[in-house]
Amino acid sequence: MHPKGCTFFFLFITFAIHYNYGHMPRFEIDILGCGAAKPSLRHLPTAQVVNVRDKLFMIDCGEGAQISLCRARHNMTRLGHIFLSHLHGDHCFGLFGLLSTMGLSGHTGEVVIHAHPDAERLFRPMLDYFCRENPFDIRFNAISPSSTEAIYSDRSVTVRAIPLKHRIPTCGFLFEEAEGERHLRGDMVEFYNIPTYRRAGIKQGEDFITPEGKVVPNSMLTLPPTPAARYAYCSDTMYTTRIVPYIEGVDALYHEATYGDQEEAWASKRFHSTARQAATLAKQAQVGKLIIGHFSSRYKDEKILLAQAQEVFPNTSLAHEGMKIILKK
Amino acid sequence: MHPKGCTFFFLFITFAIHYNYGHMPRFEIDILGCGAAKPSLRHLPTAQVVNVRDKLFMIDCGEGAQISLCRARHNMTRLGHIFLSHLHGDHCFGLFGLLSTMGLSGHTGEVVIHAHPDAERLFRPMLDYFCRENPFDIRFNAISPSSTEAIYSDRSVTVRAIPLKHRIPTCGFLFEEAEGERHLRGDMVEFYNIPTYRRAGIKQGEDFITPEGKVVPNSMLTLPPTPAARYAYCSDTMYTTRIVPYIEGVDALYHEATYGDQEEAWASKRFHSTARQAATLAKQAQVGKLIIGHFSSRYKDEKILLAQAQEVFPNTSLAHEGMKIILKK
Repeated sequence: MHPKGCTFFFLFITFAIHYNYGHMPRFEIDILGCGAAKPSLRHLPTAQVVNVRDKLFMIDCGEGAQISLCRARHNMTRLGHIFLSHLHGDHCFGLFGLLSTMGLSGHTGEVVIHAHPDAERLFRPMLDYFCRENPFDIRFNAISPSSTEAIYSDRSVTVRAIPLKHRIPTCGFLFEEAEGERHLRGDMVEFYNIPTYRRAGIKQGEDFITPEGKVVPNSMLTLPPTPAARYAYCSDTMYTTRIVPYIEGVDALYHEATYGDQEEAWASKRFHSTARQAATLAKQAQVGKLIIGHFSSRYKDEKILLAQAQEVFPNTSLAHEGMKIILKK
Repeated sequence: MHPKGCTFFFLFITFAIHYNYGHMPRFEIDILGCGAAKPSLRHLPTAQVVNVRDKLFMIDCGEGAQISLCRARHNMTRLGHIFLSHLHGDHCFGLFGLLSTMGLSGHTGEVVIHAHPDAERLFRPMLDYFCRENPFDIRFNAISPSSTEAIYSDRSVTVRAIPLKHRIPTCGFLFEEAEGERHLRGDMVEFYNIPTYRRAGIKQGEDFITPEGKVVPNSMLTLPPTPAARYAYCSDTMYTTRIVPYIEGVDALYHEATYGDQEEAWASKRFHSTARQAATLAKQAQVGKLIIGHFSSRYKDEKILLAQAQEVFPNTSLAHEGMKIILKK
């Protein structure tokens, strides 16, 4: 095929997939770091990246997050929002390196940092000094852990805070995918010879009127949209049942499990959770699956934490750097 | 041997080595990171640790330095001084994580950050916020790249600035070991039955007077000290011969070699050096050996840089994470 023809062919395919038969519904989470404050050679400090329909959102940004982002082969120019759960160093010291590198990588437009109100006062002087040549703006959005308002929303996803209980103001994040469009039934499209320009409207719920004036109801032409996926991130926090209403029925819950049963008293004193407590919440909230992380460096093998969690909630996994949680692909 | 006897035996041996026959003269450099600003999966940003007689000094502190320090099995409590060559992020973004972890690791006393005067204004608010629970003080020592005064000096080592030529004020560092004590001649110690309490003075240059009143000159009792070792660190900088007087005859020179021959014009524009330029300086300054680093992420294999440097100065090595440069052990 002539190269130009080839280009048009691929453009057509892309158009056909995106605008005729539905968006690519990707919803994936990459674990970039799942260690606790004291570093170890086993884990990096906390960072994750959520990919919703090819837009990237970072949750927390521990030291080394930028390297892990490269390792996960993500395109930094797609990252526009960074959500910081709280202002402890192991959740945000990777921010300066990441934003500097995004400047070197040709990111343009804007990056928004959603964080505690102290963040701008602390980080702005550093960013003004070290990232002054960056070709994009950095904006801070001060968030309140107790607000029920959406922190962020677009046509694909809404992000809300989950109030947590830690030594300093802290919140988790709930990522709720927007309900997708209805799926066109190929057989009906063919049967009624529905023209391309009408299909987008039908996926939104419109009926179709044939050239003869017959009204074909939408329910005959389409199938319901794929159920929207939901992901909840809860770290750092001590055990608190007040988060249950926020995380009820999510497809996946990432919950910190810094300690095991033996350290329950210490966990409580440090405002952290045990693996068993994380599993108890997962069970109460009837989540789809539980991923535990934020492991204390004292554990050379976290299988003990996994076993304790699985006693309560069998569908539990241990987080690890490089892990991909696929909710939709 | 009875356990108590065993303990005394080892204490005696330690005492004998340290106070009778000479200090352990260790002088080693660990490369913790040797990549340039744009991160890659091959290298970490710049950081090194210099071990002089078991005191640790850090040179630059790129992101990830704390993990590499753990990996090199160094005891963080021995680290009291951090020298920052300049305030570009790839040379200092690891500072906050390192200092936080030192707090968790039981470091006490003081840590001194020797850096450009802007460093305190920029870093102090961050440190006050994130390291407020640290059990040690953090002090800033503002340094001038052009000063010929020693930045730091103790009885083992003196550190001086080397003025470099970069886009912002930058200096390298020259670590000069203090001249060691003279070595006691075992045969003479035995012949004259020199008591233990006199030996320290003799190693400092004193003569010995026998019980009969005979003066035995120091030159008969001792051998000259081991020559003092010197290490020079020059990164980041464009090619400049003005550093030659500072680095003349050092045992080891670490010099940046961000680019190869083909990028010479670009290197100059970015105020960086090529591998060949680093080697040219090593040759002019007649250094013992050259280690090149600060490699641009564009090189998937730095052998081309090594080859270009070795054409000018054969005793050149490529830096790599985990490399140990041993000047004395």
